[in-house]
Amino acid sequence: MSVTAPSGFRAAGIACGLKASGRPDVAVVINDGPSAAAAAVFTANRFKAAPVRWSQRVVAGGQVRAVVLNSGGANACTGQDGLDDAQRTAEHLAALLAVPAGQVAVCSTGLIGERLPMRRLLAGVDAAAASASASPEGGAAAANAIMTTDTVPKTCALAGDGYAIGGMAKGAGMLAPALATMLVILTTDADLPPADLDKALRSAVRTTFDRLDADGCMSTNDTVLLLASGASGARPDPGAFAAGLTRACADLAGQLQRDAEGASKAIAVQVTGAATEDDAVAVARAVARSNLLKCAIAGEDPNWGRVLAAVGTTAAAFDPDRVDVAINGVWVCRGGAPGAPRSQVDLRPRDVTITVDLSAGQADATVLTTDLTAAYVHENSAYST
Amino acid sequence: MSVTAPSGFRAAGIACGLKASGRPDVAVVINDGPSAAAAAVFTANRFKAAPVRWSQRVVAGGQVRAVVLNSGGANACTGQDGLDDAQRTAEHLAALLAVPAGQVAVCSTGLIGERLPMRRLLAGVDAAAASASASPEGGAAAANAIMTTDTVPKTCALAGDGYAIGGMAKGAGMLAPALATMLVILTTDADLPPADLDKALRSAVRTTFDRLDADGCMSTNDTVLLLASGASGARPDPGAFAAGLTRACADLAGQLQRDAEGASKAIAVQVTGAATEDDAVAVARAVARSNLLKCAIAGEDPNWGRVLAAVGTTAAAFDPDRVDVAINGVWVCRGGAPGAPRSQVDLRPRDVTITVDLSAGQADATVLTTDLTAAYVHENSAYST
Repeated sequence: MSVTAPSGFRAAGIACGLKASGRPDVAVVINDGPSAAAAAVFTANRFKAAPVRWSQRVVAGGQVRAVVLNSGGANACTGQDGLDDAQRTAEHLAALLAVPAGQVAVCSTGLIGERLPMRRLLAGVDAAAASASASPEGGAAAANAIMTTDTVPKTCALAGDGYAIGGMAKGAGMLAPALATMLVILTTDADLPPADLDKALRSAVRTTFDRLDADGCMSTNDTVLLLASGASGARPDPGAFAAGLTRACADLAGQLQRDAEGASKAIAVQVTGAATEDDAVAVARAVARSNLLKCAIAGEDPNWGRVLAAVGTTAAAFDPDRVDVAINGVWVCRGGAPGAPRSQVDLRPRDVTITVDLSAGQADATVLTTDLTAAYVHENSAYST
Repeated sequence: MSVTAPSGFRAAGIACGLKASGRPDVAVVINDGPSAAAAAVFTANRFKAAPVRWSQRVVAGGQVRAVVLNSGGANACTGQDGLDDAQRTAEHLAALLAVPAGQVAVCSTGLIGERLPMRRLLAGVDAAAASASASPEGGAAAANAIMTTDTVPKTCALAGDGYAIGGMAKGAGMLAPALATMLVILTTDADLPPADLDKALRSAVRTTFDRLDADGCMSTNDTVLLLASGASGARPDPGAFAAGLTRACADLAGQLQRDAEGASKAIAVQVTGAATEDDAVAVARAVARSNLLKCAIAGEDPNWGRVLAAVGTTAAAFDPDRVDVAINGVWVCRGGAPGAPRSQVDLRPRDVTITVDLSAGQADATVLTTDLTAAYVHENSAYST
């Protein structure tokens, strides 16, 4: 199941030759309504790719009839030419669907700093629009076509009270603060206005995609887009809808974590006893970004000193002599000093939990990350060449 | 040449069995005066190792007669026991030299969270104190005994107007903001009061060790200590002395960069045209910490999009459409868009310069870093086990 799980949506994914490998590289997701309400969250990076700049304007209007996505080129840092290319792509799909171009969003992912081959891309848009289907296969094909270094497509679907939520995501590299080369399309057939969608999406993203930090790098292209067709006729309570959307986002975030480039471990950094949630997130993020710790986990070495060294770089409220650390449930550090023997920690499972209790309050937060492996280095040493 | 280059200093390095390898692991540096003026800069990490906490109190008095250093154990996150161990070590050397324990600094480096084997260590202090010598060999032996994953000892010596400056450094792992597992002992036979030494040291560190960022991780043990014997009788102009000290620190910082764990490239990230020096440093540090960029450089891939993606995460003043980027002198990005073809960049040399011109002012700064290699991951996956 994917973006076509809710009613009112058609999708497709095809290959148009943007990728040298010949794998699928263009997708469309079409909202047939009756509603076209939408909301989105974009990268906080100040170098925003052309499709992000285009789509920001589209989403500001609150109505999105379709999205065209391509892998095989980010169309980022491409100047005015790149902006023109993004606009032409939207206009092309808009003409095929007989909808306003200002209601067509664009997402791109791939190498930064190169123009897209527009002739191939537009031919791909033609083919994708022609084959768009409301079937599960249509949704699956779209999820497949947005992959770059992903090894598996990521999709989700869940049922609400009289409505459905579906989604697809790509991203395995620059996962980071406030999103990162993450393209996520969420769909629902619930009937909610743009303001409710926006509020639900921001609250869902804050505790899911924003707390996934594979390598600390932030993309120029991140986009999380939510489209509502209203085709179910259901008008859920906004709070209940936001809870369902959060579950969908958490599901996709977990899939992104498990497929992060070269990762051999899925690490949850759980901070408890923080004075504030912001403190908890700051500490969890500092730990999640320690290259030394991530190497240690790759080597199945419960080197808790590297956890404290990362915690100690933050401005969070805590007394260094009252901080406890557990790795996979074993409290190897108590009060900033040695606790249980590190030999008791079993780091062989793929899932690893690092718990830091700051003993400074009641707030908590979890950031998801991965280990740092030679495979990550290998994959990212040979990307553009 | 090393810490014994200036007159008035003796040093030694011996093996006492802290390291399983049997390599040298204890060093002493003794200031025979007539002056014992000193200054220091310590890690900004809030988890400060026991020797750092001890030495902070010592240096606060402005007088340091000797330093005892050990590799093979950081004595960090070891609680009250660790503090007692650091104090006992200082007291032991103080008794041998008949100086106040409150004038003996202690530095340690190695694994965090383990007690030091005190019987071996104190026997090592006896042996080191007995063999301390003002000869070049004494200084070289001390530099050798503080190595951990360093592959070569790092020393420097330079002549001022009637006085000398010498130094030794270790550190190849956690090089980072505001220092990191960096132990540096600087010596001089100039006759300057502690306040002048402190001012000179802070100004030298600010533009050298503080701008060396190998992996973004900050140690619990970083110490840069400056000892002045006054044995030359020279009382240099404080500004001239600070300039010489900065040259000595820059020399050692360059040696640390070139020996960083697993690095195959020495990268200088040079930011020009910044509105303020703080902006220049913030941008340079963001670029220097991009794992994706550092992998690309390891692969000799001039992926300038990753430079901009890092620049775009900062709050520095700039217009994204006016930022230029050069790699090894080739302006591959002009105005936030493609410039010269990336194929013109030659990344085969070990030294790599990445230049970012923000076109926002006159300030500049350079941060030194290294690439991210599979060798780094390998070395840091198997440290404590």
